[in-house]
Amino acid sequence: MSDAAVAKTNDKSARDYYFDSYAHYGIHEEMLKDEVRTKSYRDAIMLNSHLFKDKVVLDVGCGTGILCMFASRAGAKRVIGVDMSDIIDHAKIVVRDNGFTEDQILLLKGKMEEVELPVQHVDIIISEWMGYCLLYESMLNTVLVARDKYLAPGGLIFPDKATMHIAGIEDAQYKQEKIGFWDNVYGFNMRHFQGVVLREPLVDTVEGSALVTNDCIFRSIDIATVQISDLAFHVPFEITALRNDYIHAMIVWFDIDFSAGTKPVSFSTGPAAYYTHWKQTVFYLHDHLAVNQGETITGDFTLGPNKDNARDLDLTLHFKFEGKDMQLEKTHQYRMA
Amino acid sequence: MSDAAVAKTNDKSARDYYFDSYAHYGIHEEMLKDEVRTKSYRDAIMLNSHLFKDKVVLDVGCGTGILCMFASRAGAKRVIGVDMSDIIDHAKIVVRDNGFTEDQILLLKGKMEEVELPVQHVDIIISEWMGYCLLYESMLNTVLVARDKYLAPGGLIFPDKATMHIAGIEDAQYKQEKIGFWDNVYGFNMRHFQGVVLREPLVDTVEGSALVTNDCIFRSIDIATVQISDLAFHVPFEITALRNDYIHAMIVWFDIDFSAGTKPVSFSTGPAAYYTHWKQTVFYLHDHLAVNQGETITGDFTLGPNKDNARDLDLTLHFKFEGKDMQLEKTHQYRMA
Repeated sequence: MSDAAVAKTNDKSARDYYFDSYAHYGIHEEMLKDEVRTKSYRDAIMLNSHLFKDKVVLDVGCGTGILCMFASRAGAKRVIGVDMSDIIDHAKIVVRDNGFTEDQILLLKGKMEEVELPVQHVDIIISEWMGYCLLYESMLNTVLVARDKYLAPGGLIFPDKATMHIAGIEDAQYKQEKIGFWDNVYGFNMRHFQGVVLREPLVDTVEGSALVTNDCIFRSIDIATVQISDLAFHVPFEITALRNDYIHAMIVWFDIDFSAGTKPVSFSTGPAAYYTHWKQTVFYLHDHLAVNQGETITGDFTLGPNKDNARDLDLTLHFKFEGKDMQLEKTHQYRMA
Repeated sequence: MSDAAVAKTNDKSARDYYFDSYAHYGIHEEMLKDEVRTKSYRDAIMLNSHLFKDKVVLDVGCGTGILCMFASRAGAKRVIGVDMSDIIDHAKIVVRDNGFTEDQILLLKGKMEEVELPVQHVDIIISEWMGYCLLYESMLNTVLVARDKYLAPGGLIFPDKATMHIAGIEDAQYKQEKIGFWDNVYGFNMRHFQGVVLREPLVDTVEGSALVTNDCIFRSIDIATVQISDLAFHVPFEITALRNDYIHAMIVWFDIDFSAGTKPVSFSTGPAAYYTHWKQTVFYLHDHLAVNQGETITGDFTLGPNKDNARDLDLTLHFKFEGKDMQLEKTHQYRMA
């Protein structure tokens, strides 16, 4: 196990964001310091402690063990955390340092699909499985395997709902810096890279003020019932311009609901919400749209694992716009890799 | 080849730094946009175009081909670029788009050690091989292989000198955020991670005003003569406090010289110089030092590849401080992985 690494930061004024990191522990630090994320899990567990009391809880992908400790503190009879990463070796030390016995919190290193649990069923599954654009390198597949194998009838899942949103944004300046840059690189024409760059969704923060349209929920996922085959899909969307402006990109984000408990908890990773480490995912259009208030863009969004490399996510955005000032129908291919 | 990826940015106010990226092309974009780096190479080549005229030039790790194009424009008879990464497939398109023929710029995909060049000797080697902390994941080994195999007697290397610097910095606030954070993580004691974090050098930007000491060049590397075995070393240093202050960390940076030409060019990656994507490398001390102006810290620095994983860099910092107000001698182990 190597626990040494290099963390990188991008900006003198943002050193506390250094945790966008190559460090093995760095991503866990980033996630812990994401208070929207961590406090939502804490609240969903602690505000529903009556549901956790004396229950057996499984944490899929337990990382540093923070959710296991929340669940144990909420009164769970036993919490079992599973993670295949070396981080769990550290988590084992941390839970002992906090006085939890192995009867209270048992941490098992291995793949969820292969590890042997000391119980046949669990009452509650907790998991922080979400990836960028919800499904890129997400652990949802693993959660569903655990659900189907271990969750007792009537058992609960935290969180239990996810929705995926799409909207259009104005982003002239950054698109120029990102795409226009290649027109003239120290006197050379590197426009070839524009095609490369345009196929790559960017995980980035978008200001709420950049939103030109309303947002459309193009996919709702019920974690209690969804099947792995449902995670590749082709769905329509329709969004409407809120003002006269240009649209340079579509963005996708997700919201998360913990609605299985008495006290529902939710959070959003959208541009109008507080920063989370998931940011938003930006899909640049090759050509911008000039829209007038009230005009609609219809389209469909196809998302699924790449056939050659299931870790990669293939995305196809098809849209049709018939505005007063311009009309455009296009299909763009993207890949998160 | 996958040319799609996700780039990440850390800060709403620094979107143009988004290129700290997981994108395959992203690191190349970051390097191109690092003007200190790229313009230094451009100047070193173009201001010495009389030396490049009609010469055969080898670019070790050519990436996007930008240095090959500089060398060809400077009048080289032939430039050969070698890179084992898929980026060279894009570079081949870019050099053609810019009108360079294969006789002018030949790009070969493969390992420097294995690829077959169409020439027995080259007159000049150019390479941008530097990694974080100069030697972490650097390509210097490969440059030395190319030098010994291909460089004609009397041939030139750009750059030909690198110096490594060490200094002490005041960094109370950030050390607290980084190390103190683990004292209480949502009510739990995660101090175990402090040990993990302290062993990891941080690649980060340091303000020039944070420097508490002068800097000491602890290693000078002459690229024309250095041997691979010289890249693991144990060297002394001595630094002197410039003011009364605390020292929380030592930092390391490097300067680069292109002195083989008529017109020397150089740049620094130090905290007093303009930002480069290499930033500085920060080595936190477990305990801070309280120093008075004029007091010296002596020590030694050991650096070399990890025995089990040669990509990792092991670093040992030993220092001794006998100040008026405090005395401390410590040895800290670090690893860049």
